[in-house]
This record gives sequence, C-alpha cells and structure tokens, in this order.
Amino acid sequence: MSVHSSDTIIALSTGASPAAIAVVRLSGSEAIAKTQLLWRGKPLGEQISHTLHLGWIYTLDNQVLDEVVIGIFKGPNSFTKEDVIEISCHGSPFIVQKIIREFLKIGVRYAEAGEFTKRAFLNGRFDLVQAEAVADVIAAETEAAHQAALYQMRGGFSETIKDLRQQLIHFASLIELELDFGEEDVEFANRQDLMDTVEHIQLVIKRLLESFTLGNVVKNGVPTVIAGKPNAGKSTLLNALLNEEKAIVSEIAGTTRDVIEDQISINGLIFRFIDTAGLRETQDVVEKIGVQRSYEKIKGASLMLYVLDLQQVQTVQAYERELLEAQSFNIPFLMVANKAEFCSNALRAILTQAEAHVLISAKAKQGIDTVKDLIINKVQNNQFKVNDPLLTNIRHHESLSQTLWALESVQRGLKSGLTGDFLAMDIRIALQALASITGEVSVEDLLANIFSRFCIGK
Amino acid sequence: MSVHSSDTIIALSTGASPAAIAVVRLSGSEAIAKTQLLWRGKPLGEQISHTLHLGWIYTLDNQVLDEVVIGIFKGPNSFTKEDVIEISCHGSPFIVQKIIREFLKIGVRYAEAGEFTKRAFLNGRFDLVQAEAVADVIAAETEAAHQAALYQMRGGFSETIKDLRQQLIHFASLIELELDFGEEDVEFANRQDLMDTVEHIQLVIKRLLESFTLGNVVKNGVPTVIAGKPNAGKSTLLNALLNEEKAIVSEIAGTTRDVIEDQISINGLIFRFIDTAGLRETQDVVEKIGVQRSYEKIKGASLMLYVLDLQQVQTVQAYERELLEAQSFNIPFLMVANKAEFCSNALRAILTQAEAHVLISAKAKQGIDTVKDLIINKVQNNQFKVNDPLLTNIRHHESLSQTLWALESVQRGLKSGLTGDFLAMDIRIALQALASITGEVSVEDLLANIFSRFCIGK
Repeated sequence: MSVHSSDTIIALSTGASPAAIAVVRLSGSEAIAKTQLLWRGKPLGEQISHTLHLGWIYTLDNQVLDEVVIGIFKGPNSFTKEDVIEISCHGSPFIVQKIIREFLKIGVRYAEAGEFTKRAFLNGRFDLVQAEAVADVIAAETEAAHQAALYQMRGGFSETIKDLRQQLIHFASLIELELDFGEEDVEFANRQDLMDTVEHIQLVIKRLLESFTLGNVVKNGVPTVIAGKPNAGKSTLLNALLNEEKAIVSEIAGTTRDVIEDQISINGLIFRFIDTAGLRETQDVVEKIGVQRSYEKIKGASLMLYVLDLQQVQTVQAYERELLEAQSFNIPFLMVANKAEFCSNALRAILTQAEAHVLISAKAKQGIDTVKDLIINKVQNNQFKVNDPLLTNIRHHESLSQTLWALESVQRGLKSGLTGDFLAMDIRIALQALASITGEVSVEDLLANIFSRFCIGK
Repeated sequence: MSVHSSDTIIALSTGASPAAIAVVRLSGSEAIAKTQLLWRGKPLGEQISHTLHLGWIYTLDNQVLDEVVIGIFKGPNSFTKEDVIEISCHGSPFIVQKIIREFLKIGVRYAEAGEFTKRAFLNGRFDLVQAEAVADVIAAETEAAHQAALYQMRGGFSETIKDLRQQLIHFASLIELELDFGEEDVEFANRQDLMDTVEHIQLVIKRLLESFTLGNVVKNGVPTVIAGKPNAGKSTLLNALLNEEKAIVSEIAGTTRDVIEDQISINGLIFRFIDTAGLRETQDVVEKIGVQRSYEKIKGASLMLYVLDLQQVQTVQAYERELLEAQSFNIPFLMVANKAEFCSNALRAILTQAEAHVLISAKAKQGIDTVKDLIINKVQNNQFKVNDPLLTNIRHHESLSQTLWALESVQRGLKSGLTGDFLAMDIRIALQALASITGEVSVEDLLANIFSRFCIGK
C-alpha cells in the first residue's frame, strides 16, 4: 500500500484534554494488526473500510484502559493512503498517555510532527502545496486566511503552477524544434514568438509574486500603526475600532483576551494595531525615548493611521505641516482627521476631497466605518477575491523568484542570440524551481525525458 | 428513538485547537437530516450506521468550509441512543466555530454541559453512577483514580447498589408476610431474622461509607503537609520525593509544571505536598505569622510528614518533646528522622522499631522509598484493590448515609415492636435513597408495586 514507509506510527490528533473525547490516530501497514492486540471487540481485520466499532482497549497485561470507538480506514482510501485506525477514547490526558504507551510497547512508533501529512504527500494523496495548506487551514484565524488556505488545499494554487509548467514545457519544445533543425539554420519558432512566450510566463509569475504582499497580509495580518500628535485621539480611535468587533471576536473559543485588545478582523483580514506615544519635540529624556520608539514602530508597520487633531489644526498651513510629517515615514497611510466638530471651513474642503482622508469623531464613533473601508482599500487596490491564486507561503515565493530569475536569463540569451542548448540550462533551472513548489517527485524523470531529446554535446 | 428529547444538539467534543483534527458532535432526531443540508458527499440518509464518509461541509450560502470525515451512528446504537453524527474537521478554532455557527443557523441547538451524557442516561444507556463516572474517567489523573472511575463506568459500583436493593426488597417481603397474616398474630419471620437482615445490610453500607475516605483520596489526592523545626530538611525531603517522579509525570502531555512541583503519584495515588515554615517559638512578628500559617496548613492536611533533625535531636527527652509536638496536631503522621548519619545510639533503637517511623538521609536520597511505602500504608490500612467498590462521589455518600439512617430507624422500630406498616415507611425511604444513587427512574413504580400489597390503613 505504502510506497515510502511501512512502519506504523501513532499520535494524539485532537487538542489538549481534558475534553469529552480524544482521537488517537495510527497509520501504517500494521495499524490494524497492532490495534487488534489491545482490542476487545469485533475482529478488526475482518471489518470493511470506513466502519466504526465500539469496544475496549486493554493493556498487554489484560487491564482495562477505556471504552472506545474505533474507525477503520483501509489504504489507499485513507488520509495517508496507508491503513489508518482512529481510536476515539475518553478525553483524559491520562488515558491518552496510557493508550499511546501501550502501543509503543508493541512496536508502534510515536509520529514526528506532521508525519501523517508527510506520508499523505509521499504516497501521492496531494502535492506539497496542498500538504502545506493543511497546516495553514488549521492555523487560519480569519475568513480570508481560511479561504486562501482552503483554496490551496483543494489544489487551486497547484493548478496555477501546473499551468505555468505546461507553458514552460511548451517553450522548451519550441527550443527543441530549433535544436532538431539547428544544423540547417531553420527558424521554426521565430525569436519574437519565443520572446513573447517567455514574457507571458514572466508576467504571470510576476503577478503571483505581487500577490504575496496580500497573501502575507491575509495569512499574518497587517501591522497597522496609529500615529499622531499627543491628544489627537489615537487611543480613542483604537477603542472605537476595536469595540464593535470585540463581541464578535470573543465568541471564538480560545481567543485570548489580550490579543483581542490589539487586533480586529475587517472583511476577513486581520489588522494588528500598534498604538504609539504622541509625536512631538520634547526636552524630557524619558518621553524622548518614547517618541523615538514610536518612530521605529511606524517604520516597521505596513500601514499608518495618522490622526489629525482638528481642535489644534485649524489652518491650511498647519494641516500641510502634519501632512508632511505623515509622508515623511514613507509607508502607506490614511489621514484620519479627528474631532470633526472643530473642523475649520478652510480645511473642510481639503479633508473631504483628498484621497485617503477621512473626517471622523472618534469619541462619538462617527466615521469609523469609513476608516475601515479605507483601511481595506489601502491593503488591496483591487477587489480581493479569495479564489484568485494567492501567494501566502515564503517558500513558494522563493521558488517563483528563482523561476523568474532563470527566465530572465533565458530572455537575455534569446536577445543575445544564444543557441538552444545554452537556453536549455536555464529552462531546466526554471522548471526545477517550479516543480519544487508542488514537490513533484518525478521532476527529475520529467526533465530527463524533456532534455534527453536534446542532442548530446549541443 | 429518543424518549426524552427530540431536538438536535451540537458541540465540540475534543480539546482546544489548534490540533490536527477536531470532532464536532451532533445528537438528536434530526442530526442526519440537518447535517445533510451542509454536506457535499454521499447522501447521509442512505448510509448505514457505524460508517465513515469523506466529503465537504459548506455554508448555507454555498461557501466551502472544510473537508471532513463524517461518522454516522444511528439510534439506538449510539452513545446517546439517538442519531449521532460526528464531524472530524481540521482542528482550527476558526473552522470549528464556523461549522457550529452554520448548524445553529439551521435550528440545531448548542448543547449544554454534559448534555450528551445526560441524554445517554435519560435514554437508558446507563445509570446515574455510570454517567457520573464518565466525567471521573475524563478527569482521572492517576492509575487508581482511573481504575476506580472505569470500574464505576462499567457498572461495578451499580451492581453493588443493586445487590443492596435486592436485600432491602427481600427484607420488605419478610415484613409483608407479617402484614398479610397480621390479624392472626403469626410470626412467619421471627424478629431475630429480621434484625439479622437489617444488620447485614447496614454492615455492607457502613463498609461502603468507610471506603469513601480512600475513594476521596483516590479521586482527589491526599493533602500531605511536611512539618518540622527549621532546617530539619523539609524542602530537601520534598525535592527527594519529587525528583524521581518528575521525569515520569512530565511525560504526560498538558501537565502543568507548577503542579508537578508539588505533587507526586505513589502507587497510583496522588499526594499533594504542602511545605511549611519551620515550627519554632519566635519574637519576630513576620516569622510568627509564617509559623501560625504552618499550624493552620497542618490542621487542614490529611497526613503529616514530621521531619526530625537528628543533628539537633540527640537525646530521648528531645525526641519525646518532638513526638509530643507532632502528636499535638491530631492528624495521622509519619515521623521522618532526617540526617541519619547523626543518629545517636540512644535514639537508633527507638527510631528503627517504632511504628510509622523512618530513618533517612534526604540529602543522600537514602530511605526515600521507605517513606513512600509508609505514606501508602498510612492512607490505606488494607491492600488497595481497584476492583473493590469504592465510594468516590459525595452524592453517593449522602444517599448511602440516608439509607443507613432510615435502616437505623427500622432497627429501632423492630426493637420496640412496631408493626409492619410503620416499618414500611422507613424502608420506603431507604429504598428511595438507594435508588437515587443509580437514578432509577422507575423507582416510584417499583415502590408502588411493593407497597401496594400492604393492607390499606395498616
């Protein structure tokens, strides 16, 4: 059944006990036989796949451990494609430990982290992108992160990579045609067509690489700093932003309170808010350090909400000084003009018409929804569609960058009139980089197949 | 299927996520139909009981939530005896929350604490003792607690209660004979036989009540205080006691470190050690408070290890002063004579021969096993057998006490020559108290049946 490993592994698959139930999972060629040794119930070997059985787990020296329900999944129709046994026992740490220990005594091995998923990958249940997505699906904290991970787990992203590879192979075949007729100096594929193909592939990869910013944001949230002069209303704004969400977020079991204090989910994206000390020139040494730290925090953020105190800022000149200050950080920002009731006529026109500006009253909670809308717009210039392929994994980003780099080399080669055999080396690198994303184990064979048709010594 | 409730409930049954998988459980007459609404896979209604199915959970508005495995248990062959669906999804708090919310939208109710087990009890899967034992099985931290809970869950304790009830009913039937022939003044069952029967039942109940001390210890551990003069070596003893066990205990996933620091499991019983400030007369106000607290802690403990400093205590007189101090607390104690290398000849004979005395060197870790053996002996005078019925539940203790009280009343009635109809009232109380332990819902009928045969007005 299993191609890569035949030893049987065991692990607790569910969360920390105590709980009503816990599930201990076994996978491997001996999963059923080993379980039978500790089992009192219907003979497991005689049961068909995908069935559930009530019975008891005993120790080797015949002591009752627990009443359990056992689920049988016979390979290849299981998660790992090996035989899998799932033992639903009472959710006591003591029982789980006893059961696992008893299995260790009879030669079952404790699974390494991720080993079930690794086996599923090695046995061809899914590719590497999908395997990685399993961890992302489990870790997802927001709608968008969940949907992006699910999209990858279902093979959506892998399809995109597969498409790219097809295009690269097509390009390789054009080169190959050139090589076959190389001696005759025939140009079957003219240089311009080759250039077009490479450029098209580059364009797709570049778009994917660009989606990493959003993908990273979707997966890890947006560090958003709230800055501005002292008493501009930064904390009031933060509270106003957090308040509405608090009730919803706190419904989520296990969400820690102190994390909620600082982050909210807007349209399924997490924003991690960082409050800062008010920015001002000061002679006080301690405050100076605080302000210094604020500047550092701002530089590390992806987005800044710059809070303008309209009670203080009344003239166009004063506004422009603040705008310059905000721009000086060189990160995307939103100008949040607070205390709208003090807004001077001179400024009203500017503030309501300028892009990425919003007039609010944090205390009265007016304009907060507009702030949220603008925040979302800042992060995603286009409409965010969860079913677009989205780069969320740094490993994928590196492989795609490598692919792009190799293609640029191919492009330079084409321009300088290099012959196909030289171009082939870079294509090989590009294909290998792409294949490493989905972890195609047959990539060597595939490449061998492609390049075996190139003339030797060419 | 279900006698008592037909609405369908849902809850997360496994421990805190994130984890590889989480199991969401539904129970009720509509469990299968409701799940079908969110399910993409084989039609669940057409599947047979005890089968597993791979598929997807969608939201009502057709958004993918997760790839899951569904287990179907059709009533009455399920834990609750109702239709039960178990959804194994990815162990993400986000996914679990989304799935449960989607079910709430379609009229499934969030389960109350223990409601699945409550339904199992109400639908006659097991009695009340067994239902309570489910919680104990999950909470069990040691071998003994686990075995005691398992014994109860498997109905061992219920059997004992059932036996007692049979004996009481037998007694009632003897009384009944008396009543039937009451007018004729015939004594079918002579008074002495009746007395013997009551006394026998009382004896069994008393023994059960006595087992509560051990049962409570098995379930909750033994609060054990370590006392003695300053620098007697109390903390060194505690460390020596803890050290050997630490490695074993820390293997248990989820065991908190700071708990391990204070408790060890000896022969499957938990001992919760409480270190105290050294006991001495002092003028220092703060130290005085500390010593005062030590005295209070000692009074609240079930067992005391009184550490004797042999470097200081050399004479029989000095030893006897310490012994008096130890005895003054009026709790079971073990005299641990530390620093054996300083033991005077005068004391050696006393210390090695006296009961509950042990000569050790805490620093050199000599004699620690003997301390453990003596600790265990102190707690259980007889050999502790896990398959003996053991009273671990305060509710059971109260019901049995009530039964005993009613039987004493019967006994007094017999002695003073009361007629059967008066005795019957107390027997009724005794039977009801017993029946409340296992939660026999038919107890009223049963009693009605028994006492309907008593003559009216008698």
